[in-house]
Amino acid sequence: MSTTKSSLIRLHAADNVAVARVSLSPGAVLSEFGIAAKTPVPMGHKIALRAIAAGEAILKYGQVIGNATRAIEACEHVHSHNLAITDLHLQHEFCVDAVAPELFPEADRATFLGFKRSDGRVGTRNYLAILSSVNCSATVSHAIARHFNTSGELDGFPNVDGVAAFTHGGGCAMDGRGEGYAILTRTMAGFARHPNVGAALMIGLGCETNQIPAIVETQSLVAGPTLRTMTIQATGGTRKTIEAGIDAVRTMLPALNAQRRSVQPASELVLALECGGSDGYSGISANPALGYASDLLVRHGGTAVLAETPEIYGAEHLLTRRAATPEVAQKLLDRIEWWRDYVRRNKGDLDNNPSHGNKAGGLTTILEKSLGAVTKGGMSRLEAVYEYAERVSKRGFVFMDTPGYDPVAVTGQIAGGCNMLCFTTGRGSTTGYKPVPCIKLATNTPMYERMAEDMDLNCGEIVTGEKTIEEIGQQIFDKVLAVASGERTCSEQNDYGDYEFVPWQVGAVM
Amino acid sequence: MSTTKSSLIRLHAADNVAVARVSLSPGAVLSEFGIAAKTPVPMGHKIALRAIAAGEAILKYGQVIGNATRAIEACEHVHSHNLAITDLHLQHEFCVDAVAPELFPEADRATFLGFKRSDGRVGTRNYLAILSSVNCSATVSHAIARHFNTSGELDGFPNVDGVAAFTHGGGCAMDGRGEGYAILTRTMAGFARHPNVGAALMIGLGCETNQIPAIVETQSLVAGPTLRTMTIQATGGTRKTIEAGIDAVRTMLPALNAQRRSVQPASELVLALECGGSDGYSGISANPALGYASDLLVRHGGTAVLAETPEIYGAEHLLTRRAATPEVAQKLLDRIEWWRDYVRRNKGDLDNNPSHGNKAGGLTTILEKSLGAVTKGGMSRLEAVYEYAERVSKRGFVFMDTPGYDPVAVTGQIAGGCNMLCFTTGRGSTTGYKPVPCIKLATNTPMYERMAEDMDLNCGEIVTGEKTIEEIGQQIFDKVLAVASGERTCSEQNDYGDYEFVPWQVGAVM
Ligand SMILES: [Ca+2]
Ligand SMILES: [Ca+2]
Ligand SMILES: [Ca+2]
Ligand SMILES: [Ca+2]
Ligand SMILES: [Ca+2]
Repeated sequence: MSTTKSSLIRLHAADNVAVARVSLSPGAVLSEFGIAAKTPVPMGHKIALRAIAAGEAILKYGQVIGNATRAIEACEHVHSHNLAITDLHLQHEFCVDAVAPELFPEADRATFLGFKRSDGRVGTRNYLAILSSVNCSATVSHAIARHFNTSGELDGFPNVDGVAAFTHGGGCAMDGRGEGYAILTRTMAGFARHPNVGAALMIGLGCETNQIPAIVETQSLVAGPTLRTMTIQATGGTRKTIEAGIDAVRTMLPALNAQRRSVQPASELVLALECGGSDGYSGISANPALGYASDLLVRHGGTAVLAETPEIYGAEHLLTRRAATPEVAQKLLDRIEWWRDYVRRNKGDLDNNPSHGNKAGGLTTILEKSLGAVTKGGMSRLEAVYEYAERVSKRGFVFMDTPGYDPVAVTGQIAGGCNMLCFTTGRGSTTGYKPVPCIKLATNTPMYERMAEDMDLNCGEIVTGEKTIEEIGQQIFDKVLAVASGERTCSEQNDYGDYEFVPWQVGAVM
Repeated sequence: MSTTKSSLIRLHAADNVAVARVSLSPGAVLSEFGIAAKTPVPMGHKIALRAIAAGEAILKYGQVIGNATRAIEACEHVHSHNLAITDLHLQHEFCVDAVAPELFPEADRATFLGFKRSDGRVGTRNYLAILSSVNCSATVSHAIARHFNTSGELDGFPNVDGVAAFTHGGGCAMDGRGEGYAILTRTMAGFARHPNVGAALMIGLGCETNQIPAIVETQSLVAGPTLRTMTIQATGGTRKTIEAGIDAVRTMLPALNAQRRSVQPASELVLALECGGSDGYSGISANPALGYASDLLVRHGGTAVLAETPEIYGAEHLLTRRAATPEVAQKLLDRIEWWRDYVRRNKGDLDNNPSHGNKAGGLTTILEKSLGAVTKGGMSRLEAVYEYAERVSKRGFVFMDTPGYDPVAVTGQIAGGCNMLCFTTGRGSTTGYKPVPCIKLATNTPMYERMAEDMDLNCGEIVTGEKTIEEIGQQIFDKVLAVASGERTCSEQNDYGDYEFVPWQVGAVM
C-alpha cells in the first residue's frame, strides 16, 4: 500500500486494482507500479495493476468487489464494462475471513488519561447529564443546564466538563409496549450510566408514557447520590422544578469534581465510527485511514463500533464473512431482515446500489460502495452485533444496528457506551455530541481548508499523495489518545452537543 | 345549563343526564333540578334527570352518547348497566347536525390589537424566527438566537417579541418523495410565513435531504428582505455561519421593530384547541368551557382549530354529523382510514375505548369519551378538514389531522396559521410554543393552586360549583382577546417555546 507521490491509491496490498488520484491519459507512466495507463482513467476510477483473467475476482480494500466479465489487461480502466458481481456464492459464507486480532504485547499497549468509574468503565470526559423523559420537560432541563453554563458557578468545579441537557421530541403518545419505547428507555439509561457521565438528573413532566420510575427499574439503574430524579407535576411547576433541579445539581457537583484522570489502558476506549456528508473521497482517504486506526485500537485491546446499517445494506455479507461465530453473522442478517420490513412498512426505499453519480465517480458495484463505508471499521474480526443503544460489552470490532442519519446513529452508539467518536466527512459536517468528544476527519483538502475551524484532521493528504493511509491512520490513532486524555476537539470548542441527542424514533406518534 | 351551587353539572340544556360533582347518596336532594338521587352516584358519574325509556337516546353535551338498554328512572345512576351504543346508524349520517353559525352583527364584533401583515393576516406576536432545515444546523441556529436573547441587543427593538430558533431531530436520511418530507417542508414553510413571524432566517448544513431552495420553491416562499437563507457548508463553518446569521438578523430587526399593533377584528384570530395531561375533569370543566369560547369566537367571525385525531378515533361520526358538506365529512373519514393504516403499519394500537380507569371515573361509551375531547371545539358547524400543517384558509370551526401528542399537534396547528392557543390540562402540562401564546386552562382547583405560576385560568370553579361553564367560557374568550393583544401568558413568562418545535415525523429514519 503506497500512495506518496503516486498518481494511484492502492487501498490494500492484495488488491489487483488501484484508484486514480488524478485523471490519467493513455501512456501516463505510473512508475512505482511499473505500469503505464493503457486507456483513459478518470479521477477516482479504478485501473488494473496486472492482467486479470475473465471470471477472476477483482480485489479492492483487500476484498472482492466483483468479477472480471472479460479478460482485463494490465493498466486498463476497470468499471461497468468489464466488472460485475457474477459469483454471489462467495460472499454468503459465514466467518471465512474471521481472523483473531493479533493483540500487541501488554507492555507495548497504549494508554490515555481517563476517569475510572465505580463500575470499572473509564470516561474520557466528566459531565453531569440532565435527561428529559419527554418533550414536556425539555425547557426545564435546558434552563437548569443554562444556569450552570452562564452563571459562572462551574468555575469552582474545574474537573467538571459541563452540565448538559439531553432533551428530545418524544416520550409520550407512544406504544408503551412497543419497540420505540424500548429504544427510548435504553437510550436514556445508556446516557445515565455512561462512563463520561459522572452524575445524572432525570426530569419528567409526570403524566408521560415514558415514566422515570419504569426506566430506573427496567434498566437496572440505581437512584441515589449520582442519579437524582424529579417531575414537574410533583415538584409544583416550572419555576420550582428549575430551582429544585439547580439544587440537585449543586449537591452532586462536589463529588463529580473530585473525580480525577489517571493512566488507563487504551483497551478501555470504545470508539464510535461514523460518517456523514460523504463524498467521492470518503472511501479512499478518511474511511480507510480510520479503518487503519480502528484496527490499531483493536490490537491495543480496545473496541471499535461500526454502525449505520443502511450504508452496508445489500452487502452485509462483507461483514458476515468476518464474523467470529455463525451466531454473530446470523444476528446481523436478522437485523437486515428487520430493516427490510421497517422500510417496507414505512413505504420507503432502501436501495444502496451505486447511483448514477456514484458510477460517474468510479464506483461500480454495491459491494464496492458498501466497502467504502465499511472500511472505516478496518479488517478486524467482527466480535458482536448489537441492537440500537444496547450496551457494548464485547471488546474488539463490533457492529451496532442504527440508521445512517448522524445524530440518531451517534446517539445510539453513545448510549451503548462509546467514549470516543471519529467522524469522517467530505461535504463538511460540523456537529458534535455531548458527552463524547467527536474528532472530525476531512476526506479532502479543499473542504478541510475552507472549514478548518470545524475539522480536526485532514485525510485529504492521502488524496494529494502527501501522506499514506497508514501515516494518516497513525495520526488518527494518536489523536484519539490525545482527545481521550482531555485535548478538546473543534466541535467541543464550537460547543456542539446540546441539541444533537436524537433517540431513534420507531413507531407511530399518536 | 346551570351549575352554580349545584351538586350536578348539566353540560347542555338538551341533556337527559347530568354529572355528579360529588358522590351522591340515595335521597340526596338536588334542588334546582327538583330531583333526589334514587341510587348511589359516584363523583364524576352520570345521573338521569328524568325517566328515560328503554331504547331512548342518552344525551350528554347535547349529543347522543348511546341508548338506554332498559328503562331508567329519574334520578338513577346511568352507566354500563343501563347504557350502551345500540344504534350505530344514527351517528353515520353526514351533515345532519350542521347549522350555519349565527354571526354577531358587525357592529358588535370583538376586536384586539394585532400586527397586520402584508399578506392580510394578523399576528398576535412579532417574532424573528430562525428555522433549521436539519438537526446538523440546530446548534448554529440556537447560538444565533442566544446571542440576541443574552446580549441585550434586542433592548433597542422594543416591538420585537424575540428571536427564536426552531430546530428539530430530522431533515436528512429520509425519503425525499415521502409523506414525512412533505410534512416537514410544509411545517417549516408554515412557520416562515406565520403571521406571528415578521422575519425569518433559514439555516441548513448544505448536504441534507431537506434542501432549503426546494422548500422555498415548492412552498412558494419568497427569499428577500424578510426571509434570508444560508448553509454552514457554503458559509465556511460554524463560527462564520453564526456571525453571518447574527448579521442577517441585524439587517432584519429594524423593519421588524417598525411593525405596530393596531385594532383588528377578532375574525383574524385562528385559535388552536389542545388538551394534554387530561384527567377525569377535562370533559366536564375546561373542555366544555373552551368549547363555549370557541363557539363565541366563531360567532365573532373567527376560526377555531380542533385537532388530535387519536382523541376522536372511533367516534369521528360525531364530527361528520356537523360537517358543512359531505366532502368535508368524507375528508375526515379518509384521514381516519389513513390513521388505521399508519398505526397498523407501525404495529401500534389505536384503541380509544374508555379504559378501566375511565369507566371507574364515570365514562361509559367511546362516544362519551370522545365527546369529552371534542367538546373543546364547541357545537359549531365543521367547515373544513386539513392535513397536518396545511394552511388553514376557511373561517369558522375546522379540524386539522394531527397526533394527540401535544408538541407535535401544536406544531402542526401553528404551521397551519393558528395565532392563538388554548390548552386544557388536568394533570398539569406546563409547556408553551413560540411564536404563539399558549393559555393554560386548569380543569381542577387543586392542580390550579399547586401549579399557579403555570396556569392562566382555573376552570375547576365549574367543578366546585362556583362558576358556570358559560361564565368560565366567557372568561376564556376575554382572556384570548387580552393575550392576543399582548398580555403575556404563564408559559411566556416561563420562557417556554425554544424546544417544543416538533414536526410530526412520519416514515423511516434511514
Ligand atoms: Ca451517518
Ligand atoms: Ca479548532
Ligand atoms: Ca453549552
Ligand atoms: Ca394533546
Ligand atoms: Ca429564550
